[in-house]
Amino acid sequence: MSDRGILIVVSGFAGSGKGTVMERLLSGYDNYALSISATTRAPRDGEVDGRHYFFVDTEKFERMIEEGELLEYARYVSNYYGTPKSYVEKELSRGKDVILEIETKGALSVKERFPDTLLLFIMPPDADEIYNRLKKRGTESEEVIRARMSKAGEEAKLIERYDYLITNDDLDDCVSKVHSIIQAAHLSVSRSSDRIRAMQEQLKKYS
Amino acid sequence: MSDRGILIVVSGFAGSGKGTVMERLLSGYDNYALSISATTRAPRDGEVDGRHYFFVDTEKFERMIEEGELLEYARYVSNYYGTPKSYVEKELSRGKDVILEIETKGALSVKERFPDTLLLFIMPPDADEIYNRLKKRGTESEEVIRARMSKAGEEAKLIERYDYLITNDDLDDCVSKVHSIIQAAHLSVSRSSDRIRAMQEQLKKYS
Repeated sequence: MSDRGILIVVSGFAGSGKGTVMERLLSGYDNYALSISATTRAPRDGEVDGRHYFFVDTEKFERMIEEGELLEYARYVSNYYGTPKSYVEKELSRGKDVILEIETKGALSVKERFPDTLLLFIMPPDADEIYNRLKKRGTESEEVIRARMSKAGEEAKLIERYDYLITNDDLDDCVSKVHSIIQAAHLSVSRSSDRIRAMQEQLKKYS
Repeated sequence: MSDRGILIVVSGFAGSGKGTVMERLLSGYDNYALSISATTRAPRDGEVDGRHYFFVDTEKFERMIEEGELLEYARYVSNYYGTPKSYVEKELSRGKDVILEIETKGALSVKERFPDTLLLFIMPPDADEIYNRLKKRGTESEEVIRARMSKAGEEAKLIERYDYLITNDDLDDCVSKVHSIIQAAHLSVSRSSDRIRAMQEQLKKYS
């Protein structure tokens, strides 16, 4: 195990169940921390500052952008959402594997700046399942659902740029696969330079 | 899961316990097949042709080399050892993950010819452990042990060219790590083109 944690970005289609997978990962294992986003939108009932989000005003958010304090950010409608670097950095250096759940564009921009990031994409077993899950929510019009399906089509073109693709057809199985992928990443040679160097040094005594 | 199996090469220092790890992997999970080597040396008591080795004569072995029927081979003292391609290919196409347990040089030459191969290196927690395990066997002179330690020093320089490094300080833990690495490899995007293409096709219906 490397001492420093790994930065993991998880994306997935609407209806992929990725939110539940993340919850299970966080409650089932103690080596994970979920990144907390900053946002300029108002807190909803029950949302706690510093736990669900860091709630900031637009002026503060724009200062964070200017001062390079965000790993990535995006603007939806009139609100900003972004990932504060300091929280992620603190958790990584404590040895936690930090998970960001963000969209494809943000994911790829994080990977570009930090090539060491592990990019995971979660999808349901087939496209009908995406449609059916959106339909079942009953909160969106057919038009909105169609727009989301067409967005999924766009996102699907970016999967090749991720590192791993996990099909969520069984929740337990999906959680255990995601955990295996992250455990394996800790053992990759590129993350094991300390162990390699230590062994090489010890062997010198015998030569 | 990809339908085709993955070719895995496992190497490790003398005393790394890799033989036991392989046994446990084969008896604990049903997706693995161990590659069977061809050799020109005589069978020892209890060794069965086609199970422990494919026993062939020198003429036959040299014909296999000439006709490109070996994934890799080496000559130790006056005997040849090599990996017949046909057996590995048959198991991979049946969807088995095929494990070759071979030395660093052979491992790297397999990787060069088949870049898709997963290279795993297993080592004990520290170099003293290698020395102590060799010593405990009691079958080798101090001189032979020293030669093996110096060989380990040479091998250690090649670990950086492997994909994963697993420290064997606890057998169960080591077996489960090796299994996780292989399971994760099946989910890598580079091994998931079929799943990606299928999803992209299905999403076209909705756009």
